Amino acid sequence: MANPLSFQQIIMKLHEFWAAQGCVIWQPYNIQVGAGTGNPATLLRVLGPEPWRVAYVEPSVRPDDGRYGENPNRMQYYYQYQVILKPDTGNPQEMYLRSLEALGISQREHDIRFVEDNWESPALGAWGLGWEVWLDGQEITQFTYFQQAGGIELNPVSVEITYGLERIAIPLQGKNAAWEIDWMYGVDANLKYADIFLRSEIEHCKYYFEVADVTGLRNTYDVYEGEYRRALDAGLVIPAYDYVLKCSHLFNVLDTRGAIGVTERAGYFRRMRDMTRKIAKAFTEQRQEMEYPLNKMASTFAPINTAPARVDSKTALAPVIPADFLFEIGVEELPASDVDDALNQLQAAAPKLFDDLRLAHGDVRVYATPRRLVIAAKEVAPLQTDIEQVFKGPSADRAFDPDGNPTKAGEGFARGKGISVSDLTVEDMDGGRYVVARVKQTGRPASSVLADALPGLVAGIKFGKSMRWNASGVAFSRPIRWYVALLGGAVVPFEYAGVQSGNLTRGLRPYDSPEQVVGGIDEYLTVLEQQGIILDREARREFIREQVVHIAATIGGRVLDDDKLLAEVTNLVERPTALLGRFDESSLKLPREVLITVMRDKQRYFAIENAQGELLAHFITVRNGDADHLDLVTHGNEQVLRARFADAEYFYSKDTQKRLADFLPRLGTLTFHEKLGSMLDKNERVARMVEGIGSLLHIGETDTAIAQRAAHVAKADLATQMVVEMTSLQGIMGREYARLSGNPPEVANAIYEHWLPRFADDALPASPAGTILAIADRLDSLVGLFAAGLAPQSNADPYGLRRAALGVIQIAVQKGIDVDFAQAVELVAKEQPIPVSAEIQRDVLDFIAGRLRVWIEEQGWIYDVVASVLAAQSRNPARALQGIRELSEWVKREGWENTLDGFARCVRITRAEKEQYTVDPALFVQPEEHALYAAYQTAAAKLTPNGGVDEFLNAFTPMIPAISAYFGTGKNDGVLVNHEDAAIRRNRLGLLQAISAMQKGRADLSHLSGF
Amino acid sequence: MANPLSFQQIIMKLHEFWAAQGCVIWQPYNIQVGAGTGNPATLLRVLGPEPWRVAYVEPSVRPDDGRYGENPNRMQYYYQYQVILKPDTGNPQEMYLRSLEALGISQREHDIRFVEDNWESPALGAWGLGWEVWLDGQEITQFTYFQQAGGIELNPVSVEITYGLERIAIPLQGKNAAWEIDWMYGVDANLKYADIFLRSEIEHCKYYFEVADVTGLRNTYDVYEGEYRRALDAGLVIPAYDYVLKCSHLFNVLDTRGAIGVTERAGYFRRMRDMTRKIAKAFTEQRQEMEYPLNKMASTFAPINTAPARVDSKTALAPVIPADFLFEIGVEELPASDVDDALNQLQAAAPKLFDDLRLAHGDVRVYATPRRLVIAAKEVAPLQTDIEQVFKGPSADRAFDPDGNPTKAGEGFARGKGISVSDLTVEDMDGGRYVVARVKQTGRPASSVLADALPGLVAGIKFGKSMRWNASGVAFSRPIRWYVALLGGAVVPFEYAGVQSGNLTRGLRPYDSPEQVVGGIDEYLTVLEQQGIILDREARREFIREQVVHIAATIGGRVLDDDKLLAEVTNLVERPTALLGRFDESSLKLPREVLITVMRDKQRYFAIENAQGELLAHFITVRNGDADHLDLVTHGNEQVLRARFADAEYFYSKDTQKRLADFLPRLGTLTFHEKLGSMLDKNERVARMVEGIGSLLHIGETDTAIAQRAAHVAKADLATQMVVEMTSLQGIMGREYARLSGNPPEVANAIYEHWLPRFADDALPASPAGTILAIADRLDSLVGLFAAGLAPQSNADPYGLRRAALGVIQIAVQKGIDVDFAQAVELVAKEQPIPVSAEIQRDVLDFIAGRLRVWIEEQGWIYDVVASVLAAQSRNPARALQGIRELSEWVKREGWENTLDGFARCVRITRAEKEQYTVDPALFVQPEEHALYAAYQTAAAKLTPNGGVDEFLNAFTPMIPAISAYFGTGKNDGVLVNHEDAAIRRNRLGLLQAISAMQKGRADLSHLSGF
Repeated sequence: MANPLSFQQIIMKLHEFWAAQGCVIWQPYNIQVGAGTGNPATLLRVLGPEPWRVAYVEPSVRPDDGRYGENPNRMQYYYQYQVILKPDTGNPQEMYLRSLEALGISQREHDIRFVEDNWESPALGAWGLGWEVWLDGQEITQFTYFQQAGGIELNPVSVEITYGLERIAIPLQGKNAAWEIDWMYGVDANLKYADIFLRSEIEHCKYYFEVADVTGLRNTYDVYEGEYRRALDAGLVIPAYDYVLKCSHLFNVLDTRGAIGVTERAGYFRRMRDMTRKIAKAFTEQRQEMEYPLNKMASTFAPINTAPARVDSKTALAPVIPADFLFEIGVEELPASDVDDALNQLQAAAPKLFDDLRLAHGDVRVYATPRRLVIAAKEVAPLQTDIEQVFKGPSADRAFDPDGNPTKAGEGFARGKGISVSDLTVEDMDGGRYVVARVKQTGRPASSVLADALPGLVAGIKFGKSMRWNASGVAFSRPIRWYVALLGGAVVPFEYAGVQSGNLTRGLRPYDSPEQVVGGIDEYLTVLEQQGIILDREARREFIREQVVHIAATIGGRVLDDDKLLAEVTNLVERPTALLGRFDESSLKLPREVLITVMRDKQRYFAIENAQGELLAHFITVRNGDADHLDLVTHGNEQVLRARFADAEYFYSKDTQKRLADFLPRLGTLTFHEKLGSMLDKNERVARMVEGIGSLLHIGETDTAIAQRAAHVAKADLATQMVVEMTSLQGIMGREYARLSGNPPEVANAIYEHWLPRFADDALPASPAGTILAIADRLDSLVGLFAAGLAPQSNADPYGLRRAALGVIQIAVQKGIDVDFAQAVELVAKEQPIPVSAEIQRDVLDFIAGRLRVWIEEQGWIYDVVASVLAAQSRNPARALQGIRELSEWVKREGWENTLDGFARCVRITRAEKEQYTVDPALFVQPEEHALYAAYQTAAAKLTPNGGVDEFLNAFTPMIPAISAYFGTGKNDGVLVNHEDAAIRRNRLGLLQAISAMQKGRADLSHLSGF
Repeated sequence: MANPLSFQQIIMKLHEFWAAQGCVIWQPYNIQVGAGTGNPATLLRVLGPEPWRVAYVEPSVRPDDGRYGENPNRMQYYYQYQVILKPDTGNPQEMYLRSLEALGISQREHDIRFVEDNWESPALGAWGLGWEVWLDGQEITQFTYFQQAGGIELNPVSVEITYGLERIAIPLQGKNAAWEIDWMYGVDANLKYADIFLRSEIEHCKYYFEVADVTGLRNTYDVYEGEYRRALDAGLVIPAYDYVLKCSHLFNVLDTRGAIGVTERAGYFRRMRDMTRKIAKAFTEQRQEMEYPLNKMASTFAPINTAPARVDSKTALAPVIPADFLFEIGVEELPASDVDDALNQLQAAAPKLFDDLRLAHGDVRVYATPRRLVIAAKEVAPLQTDIEQVFKGPSADRAFDPDGNPTKAGEGFARGKGISVSDLTVEDMDGGRYVVARVKQTGRPASSVLADALPGLVAGIKFGKSMRWNASGVAFSRPIRWYVALLGGAVVPFEYAGVQSGNLTRGLRPYDSPEQVVGGIDEYLTVLEQQGIILDREARREFIREQVVHIAATIGGRVLDDDKLLAEVTNLVERPTALLGRFDESSLKLPREVLITVMRDKQRYFAIENAQGELLAHFITVRNGDADHLDLVTHGNEQVLRARFADAEYFYSKDTQKRLADFLPRLGTLTFHEKLGSMLDKNERVARMVEGIGSLLHIGETDTAIAQRAAHVAKADLATQMVVEMTSLQGIMGREYARLSGNPPEVANAIYEHWLPRFADDALPASPAGTILAIADRLDSLVGLFAAGLAPQSNADPYGLRRAALGVIQIAVQKGIDVDFAQAVELVAKEQPIPVSAEIQRDVLDFIAGRLRVWIEEQGWIYDVVASVLAAQSRNPARALQGIRELSEWVKREGWENTLDGFARCVRITRAEKEQYTVDPALFVQPEEHALYAAYQTAAAKLTPNGGVDEFLNAFTPMIPAISAYFGTGKNDGVLVNHEDAAIRRNRLGLLQAISAMQKGRADLSHLSGF
């Protein structure tokens, strides 16, 4: 068998391939860049309207990724292969896959996956949506539709394809690490990657991590920023940009050296972003002045799409009897969550579409996979239902003269409605006789109305993040590449997002997405089924679950429950084939959570444990495709995991060389917020709050002392390499490292628990110490960030304050902690480095109350009951929920209307009063007044200061007869509150005010319906 | 016809080509470098013993070459293609030529020439010998055998091939400028080089020349140097080296910005060289520690040479009768001057070789071309001449006992000489009888002794600069690639410099140097003649001269006389074919000297003028090869000249935007010598000397004033771009620019003349003003540099002080200026910024005197006459030569022996006296004394203070009879000088001393032979 391509042959082959696609073959930049994106051939050329296609190698320098040559595929220096297609070619994924074939990587033999990736570079003011491309689990390419660069919206959008050459060469050559790659084949020996780079890699790591001089490089950054400015002021865009790149590299070095402090970091990013923005603006203007010279290359870089319309000879006539309707939106791989989002929306939108269009129809089913969104409707009527519209005209005597001849008004009305005067009728209507026009609207053909409506249907699907890709400017989760739209056997013709509808679907990705003409739902389903595509999400999920469970059982294990992972995997594949991989037993010495997190978060692998709950050195992953060459795919995935675990082991060993507390200084370099200091500052603030919060929560000394001890290192793990790499391990590593540093388990545990709850259904802190920290930490965030002006906006909540508020609420409520958050907030406010006004504190409390209401309502409590209680007591969530629970019972009781009505009468008559009146029994005139007063005194005596709704209503209910008598019944007239004597009137109002006030701090029954 | 390769295709084709030659295909460096040499894949990998082959593109940044995009092929940013072959492959030139063929550049259709180039990079501590490769007059490649890098002697030597890609693409694509190059072919339009780079080029030029901030970048240099040091101290070679490259780029920017001052410049170079040296040392040590891992690649990078021995079936037996001897040393293109050197040496060495070897021979002829050194000897004897050696043994009576039997001594002697006792003879010798051994040595076969001797012959050829290239370690002007060594038809077998002798010659380069077996001289000459190779230098030169004259005549012009150029061109080609090119008439507006200099110095073109002496817009160049495709070659050369003239026009227009005096500040940035200040300092010093020197030279006020005015800007043109680019135009541009700046013609002219004479046969300053400056400037150099300790050493005369001294002498002598240089030197010494002792002044004068003697002797004056005069008067060359001229006549006169003898007698008898005695006529005793004294007085009265040799001898000759009488003749005894009375003796000596002193300041006749 021929040798696989050597590293240098891979590069040459890619050059050949992309040159044949009309790409300019470019050279690496002669300034250190972190990625090919930094090369002006990308960052500047994607700006503006001119077309461009380019391909080049880019040696990329990322000091922070250095591993001293110990990791199989992570290095501070590596080779990217960068391709830019501007505008979108319509088939960039297919072009890319063909390039892999050219290298010898067959879709059929491997598992090549497009896995959601949202790319962003704050320093470059750039972002885009796309994917990581996975080859047997290994990320080998970043594939991005560039939406913005240098802060400028891109039009046209550019496709950026960034190959990681080492990660392609490793599996291609069957190596275990980049170091083993054959750069070139020789006669007796091959030149290995390590032969050229290993020593240099180790040296650079040492330089970046240990040697670089912070002061000098910092000064150089300033000098270079100055040069950027001088150059740009002189209109010299490229020289200026070169200095931006140099600044960026210097920043990376300083950062890796651990030299970037709290306020500096954000500052540096702002400076770099600002520079890039100005460069982008200047370049754009320059190109405009030059009148876009590259437009001459349009026929090369932006050839007109001459793809055949996706309709062929099977085209049939529109149906005249009810027929099946098939609609498939063919897309490039959607993110897993977008598959769900689209499915949910279509489930509602599809039936509504037919109803709105007055199209009778049978069963409507909706499907979604990463590559297609499908509506299959049975028996759709060929025509819309007819309808008659009735229009009321002038009165009969104005429309017709006494002789019954139409007047001008009558004629005009008929003409206006498009009917003849003779078709007007006279009818009784609205208490008079009027001329009436009955206009009949005949239903249009289904095909035609669907053609009109389908663009709107597609446009109506909304995503969390969407992107543009072609000249249509339409935004969608990922590019739409085809539609199948068939009514009966006939295409429903429309165009949207630059794509025409047709009858051609595309098959399974690893089969090279074969195009196939389909005539209707059945044929369509058969075509997909033949390729193993499981269209139905639930069916796909269950199929995966079965396979996974089965495979785990073959090695005597069981997979860890993880519905979220299962749901995600379900949306990553169309034809799921699970496989079992193994990893080295020695990796099991890493903490369990680390292993699981790596497998799940990084690789979407299912972890397996044995009957004792111990992890096994195996994993299960799900390939998209059939079982052919599964060994290759398995091997590839195992290699990937090996590299991942090697990285984790590297972090773990680096981290455990120190004590947890040793990370505190580095914590000082992580910004919490510019105005609020570093994470270390926050950590220390929380530590200062422990005692106060503990006391408010009624927690004892021992537990408070534990909390105190934990508080000092609670955030320290954020500065560990493991957590920097995998944020989701925060707290978990804190606990682990605290333990290894010799802390007692309860302290270690409190560190872990202080992060709880991390998400909606997460556990709450179990220990009192953890509870103190969890609440203190969240309140610190809320109060501090509100004071810094960062209260969440409608859609923006970058600091997760909603979740923080919910966290405190959940803890307080579910642990039944009786605490007045007003006090807690006040205490926390005092520790902030910036002033926190009373108003801000109130805002925080209102914000928490808002979250509380939403949360409680979500649990199904009746709206008005919730509103009633929270209006009176939102500062203490536990008690509030108790009140809601109680009031909910009251409103269900028999006679409640009576009770409510009685109370409401007291409230209603007094609520306009601005003044508070006192009650003087000497001024009572009528016996009913005396009686009510007595009843009130009896009831009031039953109320305690911390009593709840029950106490209030239990006290109040016995007063009903007295109240009824007071306001008068059928038998007597009762008391006239608005007595002409002002003193009497006020006295009477005073009594009713006192009764109204009985609900204070418990509820405000005026929010109840029926009040 | 297919398109020529696009720029990107050229690169890919070269990658393919060199990959197939076993090269690692490498990437450009991600740090700005001035050349591919800076990439560590060259600079570091050439160190140490490990083999290496690499090829890569290198975008090269040379800020100073920026022309704001106005030059067709000179830019601050351009693309090199770099190849390193380590060790030498034995055929790197042929590999290179094949790579050009691969690009579509045929040797047959173009004029591809290897033109001597000695490459040196002080900053990199690197040098090598090799060539510029010219394609139709355009330098397209630098081809160097690397001898040293980072201050370390390289072993093995690496071959470095650096293509200038733009300069290859321009002719290949038939373009006029780099900007027009098709980088890539498109559908409706091609992507031009200008589309990508023009704007960036202009911006970078503006940045480098006008915008860059000197202070900031200077500081950055220091920071980076610090980083280099930190990294190297930590053993981090590559990171340290990266900073050297960054420093180097910063230096280039600062330099281009005009920011590097006098002392700084040398300092920067020293710093960079020092850094590179330490890096090289560290890298070398590191590789040694690693045990040279790339040695494993030997079979790929350094394949064992399996070339067939250059001896084939025509091999004949060694001759037994006198036969022709042919010896050809086949070399890669020798520098023109080395062709001459080798030829001269072989002309002496070849006959001597046969004589030394005792080989009788007929006519011996020697030839040389750039590619071969040839000895053709007729009728060489098949055997050495026999010889007999005679050895004297012990005395006869010790060797034989009285009975005539040999003693032990006798036997021992015979045995020692390898003969039997019976062959001993007894002979009379040295006044006694001795035993004698006569040993006969029979001549060895010629073939065998030649085989032994030829290596020594080759080794004996010495060159000004020589180089190593292969493992033999032999040094030669350029690599030796083959030998033809034939005696009769038989190969004389030997090996030297790693090359074996054979019978295979190689033909004309443009015919791809076809290999051909030859049987002897006649066949050899026929083979070469068939390819048009003219082996004989004179014949070649005359053939060129004829063609050039003829072609010039066809356009009614004549070529400018230039024997030096003709001689050089003669040694650049084997088959000369002259061709006529034209250039744009508009270029004629440039000064004539500029045009000529560009054509001659840069291109080796002959300039043509019309009958009126005006330059024509034509040139003649001589191609190596036949007349095929002469149009292509002509077109190429025209293009090259266009670019050259464009550059000259650029300089001219930049320079003439200012007045000449405006260049003085920049002159302050050019170092003359660290201790002596800048060129501006020198210029000002000379200006201060003008009056004094003028007065010493007896030059009038008007002319001195002109000199004064010229002096202030005499060196200013050194700071102009034109002169920076073409040093030989110094003075010429000074004159031109002075004129344009409004100076009177005589001032402008003095500026020009102050450089005269520039070389041996150059004109002398014609004007008095020019004379003052020329002498002052040279004396300033001599005195200053001697004082700075830079008197020329045996071979080293970096400041050209020999030429300076000769210049002053030539001016003084040939213009007959009567000046005492001792006074001038004293005057000049006073203006120096460092002390100049009397001893130093004397050294300078002696140095001038030494040059004077050599110069005069070279003119054929008799040695002893010269010595006599110079012993008395070397401080005033003009008078000295006059004296020599006079004395030369005297020594030829009849009776001169008598005259000389008379004078000599006076001198000889007194010269041992340490004391000077007076003459008192009262102490005269004999009449001869009185007579001589009277004769002396008569003669002395004829002597004037500034009189010369004639005056002295005319005065002296009449004294001869008195002298003869004084010392006695046959008739009388004469005077006894050594009288016993001391007073009388002293008085007599005193008279003779006075007579002896008559020659003082005129000559010292004791140096004459026969004295």
